[in-house]
Amino acid sequence: MSDDRLAALEHRLNLLEDERAIARLIASYGPLVDAGQAAAVASLWALDGSYDVGDWTMSNRDEVNAMVKSDAHQGLMARGCCHFFGPPVVTVDGDSARAVCQSTILVRREAGGYHVMRAGVHLIRLRRAEHGWQIVSRVARQLDGSGEAFDLITTGVEGGRR
Amino acid sequence: MSDDRLAALEHRLNLLEDERAIARLIASYGPLVDAGQAAAVASLWALDGSYDVGDWTMSNRDEVNAMVKSDAHQGLMARGCCHFFGPPVVTVDGDSARAVCQSTILVRREAGGYHVMRAGVHLIRLRRAEHGWQIVSRVARQLDGSGEAFDLITTGVEGGRR
Amino acid sequence: MSDDRLAALEHRLNLLEDERAIARLIASYGPLVDAGQAAAVASLWALDGSYDVGDWTMSNRDEVNAMVKSDAHQGLMARGCCHFFGPPVVTVDGDSARAVCQSTILVRREAGGYHVMRAGVHLIRLRRAEHGWQIVSRVARQLDGSGEAFDLITTGVEGGRR
Repeated sequence: MSDDRLAALEHRLNLLEDERAIARLIASYGPLVDAGQAAAVASLWALDGSYDVGDWTMSNRDEVNAMVKSDAHQGLMARGCCHFFGPPVVTVDGDSARAVCQSTILVRREAGGYHVMRAGVHLIRLRRAEHGWQIVSRVARQLDGSGEAFDLITTGVEGGRR
Repeated sequence: MSDDRLAALEHRLNLLEDERAIARLIASYGPLVDAGQAAAVASLWALDGSYDVGDWTMSNRDEVNAMVKSDAHQGLMARGCCHFFGPPVVTVDGDSARAVCQSTILVRREAGGYHVMRAGVHLIRLRRAEHGWQIVSRVARQLDGSGEAFDLITTGVEGGRR
Repeated sequence: MSDDRLAALEHRLNLLEDERAIARLIASYGPLVDAGQAAAVASLWALDGSYDVGDWTMSNRDEVNAMVKSDAHQGLMARGCCHFFGPPVVTVDGDSARAVCQSTILVRREAGGYHVMRAGVHLIRLRRAEHGWQIVSRVARQLDGSGEAFDLITTGVEGGRR
């Protein structure tokens, strides 16, 4: 009886820890990419993990690393840029998980203050690896009235495949 | 002795799970309302739950559903709109809970980028129902220098009735 | 054996509770400072805790309290102001902890809507006190292309001293 109660507690705690680890991974992305920590950003992805931001598709960890080091990203950093994410909605299912969260990109104006360059949503799929969770696919779309962002949200919060 | 330790663990874990469920519910609202998922948004509320956003008061789940389907909301969605929420401060007390969080509404500009249309605070009261937590009342006010938003914050973080 | 499993569970639960307490403390700051709750804001700091925001350095709890009551801050509140924080990346190490998070300050425009006045990052160091966690030092820097914000991020997410 005590053993059953212990096992139930362990199971519930495992789930909370998984969700916490995934939330922390997602919360790390914005600060790390703002600081140009290419290797640390890339290590959030599986070796073959993908990142599709609409106008740029990366199909593995090396390409994520290259994005952070790109002139486009380095230019944003030099200008002053904040990749700001909200709290994710995480759903863990055994050794897989998905999360959906919103994000904005704030870019510094010459005249002072910041401009909201983008606002969108991310659908992130993760897999449990030897040393924690890794991103296997991530798709971001702007909230621009098109249905693509809406699909990511519906899939991310309520389930289904994409 | 072991039974007491088990019971204490169960009690502490219950609390973390309650807070996690409420944080997830609140984090779901922004993406779901951005995607126009009227039924899913409305189901976050109790049947008789209310939502007062200052210039619009909804007094039950059906009226929340109607708000999402309204021309006003559908127009925002078509233009491109992000209801972006921060991490909530959650306080659970048995089968009741309250949460306070900040929010912004970002609306797409014709010329590119997004405009910060609103910035405010939400005081959310919840009740434990048969299948999880539900919103029984929610009040949002802009941070516009008036005392109404300040009252929501003080009540939400520090307690007291409203 | 059961005792070992119980002890392991208690240890893991302690860590989740510590992280939750710190995340809640950080999430409380924005709403409380927006509402001008000087005493409640100041009580998040240790008596000798510091807050360095670049153009203003506070070196104890009383000076944090005075900042909230200052004409500068009260003026922002009267105009309409939202100190909006993202979810923190928290790392607990026994009775010490650090957290990094991004933040923006939104200020109301006369013409309607809000202006993004600042966007930056906070490195927060905390200590376990008799009644919960307290901030012992907090440094905020804008994401303006300079290396100072980048250093806070690297230290906060990946460790090291500062």
